[in-house]
Amino acid sequence: MINISVLGYGTVGSGVVEVLNKNRDSIKKRAGQEINVKYVLDLRDFKGDPIEDKIVHDYSIIANDPDVRIVVETMGGVNPAYEFVKEALLNGKSVCTSNKELVAKHGAELLEIAKQGKVNFLFEASVGGGIPIIRPLNQSLTADEIEEITGILNGTTNYILTKMSYEGCQYEVALKEAQEKGYAEKNPQADVEGFDACRKIAILTSLAYGMQVDHEDIYTEGITKITDVDIAYAKSIGAVIKIFGTSKKVGDKVFAMIAPMMIKSDNPLYSVNDVYNAIFVKGNLLGNVMFYGAGAGKLPTASAVVSDVVDATKHLGTNIMTIWSSKKLVLADINEMEQRFFVRIPNAQKDKVKDVFGEVEGVAAGIEGEYGFITNTLTEREYKKKVNGFTVRSMIRVGF
Amino acid sequence: MINISVLGYGTVGSGVVEVLNKNRDSIKKRAGQEINVKYVLDLRDFKGDPIEDKIVHDYSIIANDPDVRIVVETMGGVNPAYEFVKEALLNGKSVCTSNKELVAKHGAELLEIAKQGKVNFLFEASVGGGIPIIRPLNQSLTADEIEEITGILNGTTNYILTKMSYEGCQYEVALKEAQEKGYAEKNPQADVEGFDACRKIAILTSLAYGMQVDHEDIYTEGITKITDVDIAYAKSIGAVIKIFGTSKKVGDKVFAMIAPMMIKSDNPLYSVNDVYNAIFVKGNLLGNVMFYGAGAGKLPTASAVVSDVVDATKHLGTNIMTIWSSKKLVLADINEMEQRFFVRIPNAQKDKVKDVFGEVEGVAAGIEGEYGFITNTLTEREYKKKVNGFTVRSMIRVGF
Repeated sequence: MINISVLGYGTVGSGVVEVLNKNRDSIKKRAGQEINVKYVLDLRDFKGDPIEDKIVHDYSIIANDPDVRIVVETMGGVNPAYEFVKEALLNGKSVCTSNKELVAKHGAELLEIAKQGKVNFLFEASVGGGIPIIRPLNQSLTADEIEEITGILNGTTNYILTKMSYEGCQYEVALKEAQEKGYAEKNPQADVEGFDACRKIAILTSLAYGMQVDHEDIYTEGITKITDVDIAYAKSIGAVIKIFGTSKKVGDKVFAMIAPMMIKSDNPLYSVNDVYNAIFVKGNLLGNVMFYGAGAGKLPTASAVVSDVVDATKHLGTNIMTIWSSKKLVLADINEMEQRFFVRIPNAQKDKVKDVFGEVEGVAAGIEGEYGFITNTLTEREYKKKVNGFTVRSMIRVGF
Repeated sequence: MINISVLGYGTVGSGVVEVLNKNRDSIKKRAGQEINVKYVLDLRDFKGDPIEDKIVHDYSIIANDPDVRIVVETMGGVNPAYEFVKEALLNGKSVCTSNKELVAKHGAELLEIAKQGKVNFLFEASVGGGIPIIRPLNQSLTADEIEEITGILNGTTNYILTKMSYEGCQYEVALKEAQEKGYAEKNPQADVEGFDACRKIAILTSLAYGMQVDHEDIYTEGITKITDVDIAYAKSIGAVIKIFGTSKKVGDKVFAMIAPMMIKSDNPLYSVNDVYNAIFVKGNLLGNVMFYGAGAGKLPTASAVVSDVVDATKHLGTNIMTIWSSKKLVLADINEMEQRFFVRIPNAQKDKVKDVFGEVEGVAAGIEGEYGFITNTLTEREYKKKVNGFTVRSMIRVGF
């Protein structure tokens, strides 16, 4: 039997206890021994809850108990999670976390501490909820050089965009419904502005290239400006609008961004709808692979955390090497990134388009008084230069 | 530096050497040390090939060289692969293989030998080519009880069905094109009759339930009877026909089969086209996940083999536990499996349908002289009983 402790008895933390109880037998078989929750750290008491007797309010009880071999951190936020996790690792305990803020900011340092102490710092649930992506990236795609990672990394925004696309409703209506269903927070900023997805692509990119990618360096554009008119244009050419977190290696440069993209059905991410997430990875020899599943939710996320607990149990005393040095990966200037751009302008400016952009692909969605078109492949810098002088009603990058 | 040897310098074997050369630096970083090919076993000499000096014709040179820590088996077929792999494991070498016949037949035994000898027997490339599925199933989905695995596991048949669906051509025409492109063998039986997919679902099901599933026990139906008329019916209701390898746990029973299925766009496997493969897994807590990518091809398959070599290098002296006992899993009688059935009968028999099947869903594809319909949910046994007395022109199981 191995003793673990859970920090934070919120949605994911209580989910971890539920998963361990529900699948006790099969988990024991997989881990090679029974997994027992010894303590649960929370500020609250949870009177009457089956875990009531395990609740502690003082982290030092867990940190200083040598019986506790694995700590599950599901509190979220950088502090005090960072201090707690660091102390656990330094005290010879493995840590499994679902906390993307913590991993994005301190992943490299915590992995190094784990390596030194022959314990493990695992974070499968920090990206893509229940989708196995961290472990495949670390352990399965090891023969390849990663050329691209593109993901639908946030279920809330994917739900909103799916609603807008398939029911024709406006952003505000779709957001309200997402909030009513519990998919979006009251303050939805972290999701709709792309900040959540930004931390996730920072983690994936750091792992892909083995260096620290600071999420603050990643160009981030949310979905708040997408309207039903944009969706109508997309629809008229059989396209949909998704928000992607993406990083691409072009020569020696690594570009990364979060931004809405217009894609067609030849893109494997096209039919990833509702709150589902998916991550597409392109290897230089492997070609395209994609991982799809529930990107959030109590039990899928908790299931991913528990899979880490099983892995940590199987690797007691051995560090599972993860290459992520604290050396900073300087991202390339987004202005040098090349793609096509969908642009809406007033009809009156249509005649100038050919002179400035050359031959473009017109998009007719029957919107009165305006003209929509898709440019040829341009760098962001070229696009910005050319579009200067036009009254741009909206611009969405194009993935075809 | 670690020395490995490659058994069989055919498509996958030469691909392994190519992957190791091409991504030498990144593989070294991931594995923690350089990977050197010391010998290549083949009957041929490969005069002028860069590996000419490494060619040996006598396996005992490899088996008895203690410098060789990992053996890559890419010969295919059960014999002599089985004898070679067993000897390597017994001599303290880890083995990485792409050989599905070998794994399906002797996986349990070879895993047990590896465990006893503290070495590893890895076979990521045996299912789904470059798609990471074996390792995720073993190491990532460990918190869940697997309720279903359904995969498009054979690229050749998926290519043929995609061609038939999107270009309206007949089976023979699509097969011929697949052969011309090198996707199908001259003798395509193993693919088109479902035997290849059968071995793959046997491996996945064995891993999911930790017991031996014998591929001979799995009901297997190929695609040779699918016609353009069936495709036309499917199209008329927005469905496509795919061939699935599937295993499902219903209560204590595990059903497994290979068969063509009619599915609609709400199924994540709907848009998996051409030679791509994908594997859908349903966990009791995780819900649905799907893994997608190139299911075959020299470099994707070799990339998966090399990822196993990296893993074996990182785990020298430690067995990565894989639960697959030699105890036989007795599959449930397929006659008790429940689903809906699409059926084509002569128009003259249409009037009897309601009496026998109750309310059904008519499918109108404009085919003269016949009637197509989809039954309610029935067991195979009930279906067979009811359909007795009708002249069935074709029957395809329905996944919606």
